[in-house]
Amino acid sequence: MTIIRNSAPVAVVIGAGDATGGATARRFAREGFTVVATRRNADALQALLKDIESEGGVAHAMACDARQEDAMVDLFKGIERDIGCVEVVVFNIGGNVYFPIIETTAQVYRKVWEMSAFAGFLTGREAAKAMLPRNKGTIIFTGATASLRGASGFSAFASAKFALRALAQSMARELGPQGIHVAHSIIDGAIDTAFIREIFPDKYATKSEGGIIDPEHIAEQYWQIHCQARDCWTHEFDLRPWMETF
Amino acid sequence: MTIIRNSAPVAVVIGAGDATGGATARRFAREGFTVVATRRNADALQALLKDIESEGGVAHAMACDARQEDAMVDLFKGIERDIGCVEVVVFNIGGNVYFPIIETTAQVYRKVWEMSAFAGFLTGREAAKAMLPRNKGTIIFTGATASLRGASGFSAFASAKFALRALAQSMARELGPQGIHVAHSIIDGAIDTAFIREIFPDKYATKSEGGIIDPEHIAEQYWQIHCQARDCWTHEFDLRPWMETF
Amino acid sequence: MTIIRNSAPVAVVIGAGDATGGATARRFAREGFTVVATRRNADALQALLKDIESEGGVAHAMACDARQEDAMVDLFKGIERDIGCVEVVVFNIGGNVYFPIIETTAQVYRKVWEMSAFAGFLTGREAAKAMLPRNKGTIIFTGATASLRGASGFSAFASAKFALRALAQSMARELGPQGIHVAHSIIDGAIDTAFIREIFPDKYATKSEGGIIDPEHIAEQYWQIHCQARDCWTHEFDLRPWMETF
Amino acid sequence: MTIIRNSAPVAVVIGAGDATGGATARRFAREGFTVVATRRNADALQALLKDIESEGGVAHAMACDARQEDAMVDLFKGIERDIGCVEVVVFNIGGNVYFPIIETTAQVYRKVWEMSAFAGFLTGREAAKAMLPRNKGTIIFTGATASLRGASGFSAFASAKFALRALAQSMARELGPQGIHVAHSIIDGAIDTAFIREIFPDKYATKSEGGIIDPEHIAEQYWQIHCQARDCWTHEFDLRPWMETF
Repeated sequence: MTIIRNSAPVAVVIGAGDATGGATARRFAREGFTVVATRRNADALQALLKDIESEGGVAHAMACDARQEDAMVDLFKGIERDIGCVEVVVFNIGGNVYFPIIETTAQVYRKVWEMSAFAGFLTGREAAKAMLPRNKGTIIFTGATASLRGASGFSAFASAKFALRALAQSMARELGPQGIHVAHSIIDGAIDTAFIREIFPDKYATKSEGGIIDPEHIAEQYWQIHCQARDCWTHEFDLRPWMETF
Repeated sequence: MTIIRNSAPVAVVIGAGDATGGATARRFAREGFTVVATRRNADALQALLKDIESEGGVAHAMACDARQEDAMVDLFKGIERDIGCVEVVVFNIGGNVYFPIIETTAQVYRKVWEMSAFAGFLTGREAAKAMLPRNKGTIIFTGATASLRGASGFSAFASAKFALRALAQSMARELGPQGIHVAHSIIDGAIDTAFIREIFPDKYATKSEGGIIDPEHIAEQYWQIHCQARDCWTHEFDLRPWMETF
Repeated sequence: MTIIRNSAPVAVVIGAGDATGGATARRFAREGFTVVATRRNADALQALLKDIESEGGVAHAMACDARQEDAMVDLFKGIERDIGCVEVVVFNIGGNVYFPIIETTAQVYRKVWEMSAFAGFLTGREAAKAMLPRNKGTIIFTGATASLRGASGFSAFASAKFALRALAQSMARELGPQGIHVAHSIIDGAIDTAFIREIFPDKYATKSEGGIIDPEHIAEQYWQIHCQARDCWTHEFDLRPWMETF
Repeated sequence: MTIIRNSAPVAVVIGAGDATGGATARRFAREGFTVVATRRNADALQALLKDIESEGGVAHAMACDARQEDAMVDLFKGIERDIGCVEVVVFNIGGNVYFPIIETTAQVYRKVWEMSAFAGFLTGREAAKAMLPRNKGTIIFTGATASLRGASGFSAFASAKFALRALAQSMARELGPQGIHVAHSIIDGAIDTAFIREIFPDKYATKSEGGIIDPEHIAEQYWQIHCQARDCWTHEFDLRPWMETF
C-alpha cells in the first residue's frame, strides 16, 4: 500500500489489542481520523484494519515494541512525515500480574513497569514532541483500580500503574497550558475479553446485565474526552459497571 | 398554566442559577426532557423558562428552598404526580465563602453546610426515593476544588464540599447496584459569571482564550454522563480550563 | 474544689469518653498537663478524674455540649481565665450510624454532622482563639476510615467525617504558619470498647492477638504528635491493627 | 574487623547518606540496634561509623548498589548469617530531578525509577524474606510530596515516587497480617542538607526558625513508628516544617 500523507488528523493507538485499543481505533476512524494502530505483532492487527476499512475508514498497522525508545521515536517521526499530523494518542498497554512480594522476581517487577509505565513515558514524550509545535492534541492514558491503591499481591502491577498516573498528572500540568489535553482513565471493572470469559466465567455471566465493560463504551468516552472544549477539560475519570462494588 | 403529566422524562435542576444550573436545564430540555428548575426565588427563573420555551422545550419553574425538608419532599412528590417520572436530578447549589477560622461564625459554618451539603442530601434522598422503584436515573452533584482539599480560609466551604462528596460517594456505592447512576464533578476553575467578571477582571480577560469555563460546556458533560451505558459509568470527573494550574 | 490558675499547660479533651478520650486525658495528665475533660454528662467523668488523681495528676471535669456555641466559647474562656493556658486540644466526638440513604432522616443527617463536624469546628475555632496570641499549641481531630471514602449506608457518617477532615486540613494550612500544629488521625479499626465487645464478639475475640486497638496506644500517638519538633510536623496519620485489611 | 553474630537486632539503612539515612542509623544505634549502613561508596560511610562508635554503638558499612538484585540478595543473606536478625529496614534512596517532558531522556526516566522504585522493591522484598520466618519487623520507605501528586517537570521523579508508594501500600496490606509493619513517609519540605544550603539559600535561611527539616527529627519519627504497638500501626504519615505551605 502506498501511503499518501494527507490532511486528515491522525489518531495513534499504542497497544491496539482486541478490546479497548481496537475499539478506540475504530471509534476515531469513524470520525474521519486516519488511525495508526500498533502492537508488537502487526499480523494481529489485520482483522482490525479490515474492520475499519469495511466501515470506510483509513488505518495503518505498525509493528512496534513500545518499550524500545528508538522504535517509538521512529514511529512518531514516520507518522508525521508520511501519514499526517498526530492529533490524538491513546496509550493502552498494561501488564496485570499477581504475585506475593517474595515471589515477585526482579524480571517481573521490571517488565511490568516497562510495559505499563516506561512505554507510557515514551509514548507520552513522543506524542508531546509531535503536538507541541501545533499547541494542539489529546493524549489519553488507560489506568486501572491499581492506579489508585495498592493491594496484597499487586506490588509490581500497582507500582507500574501508579507510575503511569504520575506521568499523566505531571504531563497534564505541564502541557495543558501549552494546549495539549492529557487525560487518565481509571477502568474499575472487568472488560469484555477472552481472558475474563475464560478465567472468570461467573463474572462474565453478568455481561447481559451490564456487569462487564464493553470496550466500545470506553472508546466512546475517549472520543468524548477528545471533543471537550478547551475551557472545560477533564484530566481524570473512572469507568465501571453499574453493579461493580467500589 | 395547566400542567399535563405526560411521558417525557423529567430533569430536575436544584439551584438553577444563571450559569451551570441554567445551562444544564437548557441542555436537557433540548433533548426532550421536561425540565423542572428550582431556586429560592421563582421570578428569577422566568428568563430561563422563556429561553427554553423559545427553543421549543418544556420547563417549569418552582420556588423552593432546598434546605427545607418538607419543601423538598413535596417538590419531588408533586413532580412525580403532576409532571412525569424523574429521570435526572442535578444538584448545583454551593456557597463559596472565605473567612479565617477565628472569623468564621457558627452561623456561616452552618449556613454553608446547609446550602452545599444538607440541601444536597435532601435532593439526593428524594431523588433516590423517586428513582428506586424504577431502578433507573442519574443524579449529579456539582463539586469544586474545595471538595478535594482544604485551604487557608476555607474551613467552612471545604467542610461543606467534602461532605457533599462523601454523600455522592456513599450514594454511588449504594445506589449503583440498584440501577441509579450517581456522579460528582470537580469544577476546578472560574465559571463565566457576573461575579467573576466583576471581582476577578484579570481572570475574566482570559475568556476569549478559553481561560473561563463556559457553563454550556459543563452542561454538555452532564448530558454525556447521563448518556453513559450502564456497564461504563463515571462516578467522578474534573473539569477545568486548559490554562488552569492545578 | 477551688481551682487555682497555675503555670501547668492545659490539655482539653472534648468528648472524653471511656476509650480514646479518657486514655488521652490520662496520657497528658501523666506528662504534667492539667487536664480538662468534657462530655455532656459530667458525672460520667468522675471515674476518669479519680484515675488521674490516683496517678498524681490534675484534672477537671466539665459538662459541655460541644454543639452549643455559647457553651464552647464559655468553656475555653473559663479555662484560660481560671485554670491555665490551653496548649493541647483533642476533639474526639463522633457519631457512627448506618442507614440506607432513603431511611436517613434529616434529623439523623443533621445530628451526625453536629456531633462530628460542627462540634469539631467550634472546638477548633475556640482552640485557635486561645492559642493564636501565643503562637503555640496542638489541635488533634480524631477521624475514621469514613473520613477518606464513602460507603453504602454511610451517607450521614461519611459526610460528617469528611467535613471534619476538611476542617483539619484548612486549619492546618492556615494555622501552621502561625505556630499551631493541627493534626488529623484516621482510626481504621475497632477500638477496645464495650460496644465492640457486645456487638462484634468475633472481632473482639482477636483482642489478645492485637486485633483491637487499645485506646492507650492511640493516646500514645497523640502524645507523640504533640512532641514533634516544629520543623517536622505530621498533619495526618492512620492507625490500625496489624491484622486489619485495608 | 571481625564481625561476631550476636543477639542484638539489626537495623539496615539502605541509602545512608549524610541526612535522613545517617540520622536514622544513629537513632537506631542509640537504641541498641546493630546498624548496617549501605551506600554505593562505603568510604563515604566512615564518618557515620565513627559517629556511631563514639556514642558506644555498633555499626557496619557495606558498599552496595541497591539497584543490583544479586548485591541486595547477598547483602541481606550476609547480614542474617553474619551479623544478626534484621528487625528494621529503612529505604532512603531517591533521585529528585527536574526536566520538561520532552527533555526527559529514557536514561533519566529509567535511572530515577531504578534508584527510587526498583531499589525500593529489592529492598522491600529481601527485607520481607528475612522477616517473614519470624513474623516480625518494620520496613520504612521514605517518600516525598511527589509521591502524592505529579507536577510540571516532574514526570520522571513523580513516576518513581508514586511507584514506591504503591509498593509500600501493597506490601503493607500483604505483610501486615503476617506481622510485618510497613510504613511510608511523605517528606514535604526541605531537609537540612548541603544541597539546600547551596541551591536555595533563602529557604535555608529559615533554618533557625524551624523552616528546614532536621534529619534527626525524621529519624525520631522513624523510631516512633518502629515502637508502635501492633494493634495500632501507622501506614502513612507526612512530615513538614510548621511554616511550609501545602
